Amino acid sequence: MSELQPITVYVHEAGPNPYKVIIAAEELSVPYKTIVVKDPKEEWFAAINPNGRVPAIVDPNTNITLWESGAIVEYLVETYDKQGKLTVSDVAGKWQLKQYLHFQMSGQGPYYGQSMWFHRYEEDIPVAKQRYNEQIVRVVQVLDNILKGKEYLVGDKFTYADLSFIPWNRVIEGHPILKANVWDKYEVEKKYPNYVAWQQRLVARPSVEQAYKGW
Amino acid sequence: MSELQPITVYVHEAGPNPYKVIIAAEELSVPYKTIVVKDPKEEWFAAINPNGRVPAIVDPNTNITLWESGAIVEYLVETYDKQGKLTVSDVAGKWQLKQYLHFQMSGQGPYYGQSMWFHRYEEDIPVAKQRYNEQIVRVVQVLDNILKGKEYLVGDKFTYADLSFIPWNRVIEGHPILKANVWDKYEVEKKYPNYVAWQQRLVARPSVEQAYKGW
Repeated sequence: MSELQPITVYVHEAGPNPYKVIIAAEELSVPYKTIVVKDPKEEWFAAINPNGRVPAIVDPNTNITLWESGAIVEYLVETYDKQGKLTVSDVAGKWQLKQYLHFQMSGQGPYYGQSMWFHRYEEDIPVAKQRYNEQIVRVVQVLDNILKGKEYLVGDKFTYADLSFIPWNRVIEGHPILKANVWDKYEVEKKYPNYVAWQQRLVARPSVEQAYKGW
Repeated sequence: MSELQPITVYVHEAGPNPYKVIIAAEELSVPYKTIVVKDPKEEWFAAINPNGRVPAIVDPNTNITLWESGAIVEYLVETYDKQGKLTVSDVAGKWQLKQYLHFQMSGQGPYYGQSMWFHRYEEDIPVAKQRYNEQIVRVVQVLDNILKGKEYLVGDKFTYADLSFIPWNRVIEGHPILKANVWDKYEVEKKYPNYVAWQQRLVARPSVEQAYKGW
């Protein structure tokens, strides 16, 4: 796709959601450039995303401006994945992909983010920390059940549904706060082997390695 | 569409998310029947949704089983909205619909739900209540800005993007807890007139009235 102009991806220094977009672009060999947004509440960025969050993209090939990582991943797939690398072809499977993407967006991301927020907050609020850590473990357990006897969520192949879970999965395994308070404390590695094997499979992809080289 | 068999929609006694599905079915004149799930953690329901949440649907016309309200709304629209009643026809607008649906799923629902949870929790955790109430007001403010000079979110018509916000919008206006702690306390009615006018426009639809007659 060398005829394509690079898509601008607005990211922040750290934080998981922009990685979904970068991994998808890497998988699909869509050219991109990143712009780090120091303060997403600034006026210039509000013109791109009035919700003041990253990621957002501007695609000069289509003149599309878009925010919300879930919508952006779907956009990249529908626009640039003509060979169906990240999708499945049957109708039931196609709706499962959307189901899991929405589960990731509404069920994984928010809880994981709330746990981080309370662990970083100046005051100790044990009830809130425990609530969100237990929710994280619940999500891991649900995924572990779904993945029983399966290598990927849908259709026995890597899809954008799997992809969308990678960044927050990495955080509970790799970020010191959630590693200590979730991964180690709730013995994720021991108790949820389907989940753990799946995540190892996902992060072994060259696209993920490339994305996490940073910007 | 009288040749269609009714879709089974799994709901709970109260709670906003199943209403998205019911309103969409009403708008599209898709026949449905509801089954109230007393305990979504029960084994029989885990076979339908391993995440243990409602709504979920089983569509006998297509043999599709699906969960996550956002995915179900998209499914109903793509499968049964052949005239484009709840969508727009231009490509940019189509992606905006998905963007707003993901914003609703990841940005509205979770925060509103967390506020409810802490207000109902046996212990008083002022930091958490304040955090989530402020997040709700932030979401309302973002919507109010987006709706400046507009009647609907996308394309000057009612779409599934608007539809998806209706149930939680109703909760902050109508549920005693959030009415007192958000709607009244933060003067939503006075400060966010675009938002308020939009919500009034949405709830005036016959589909919404019909949905809230209950099951």
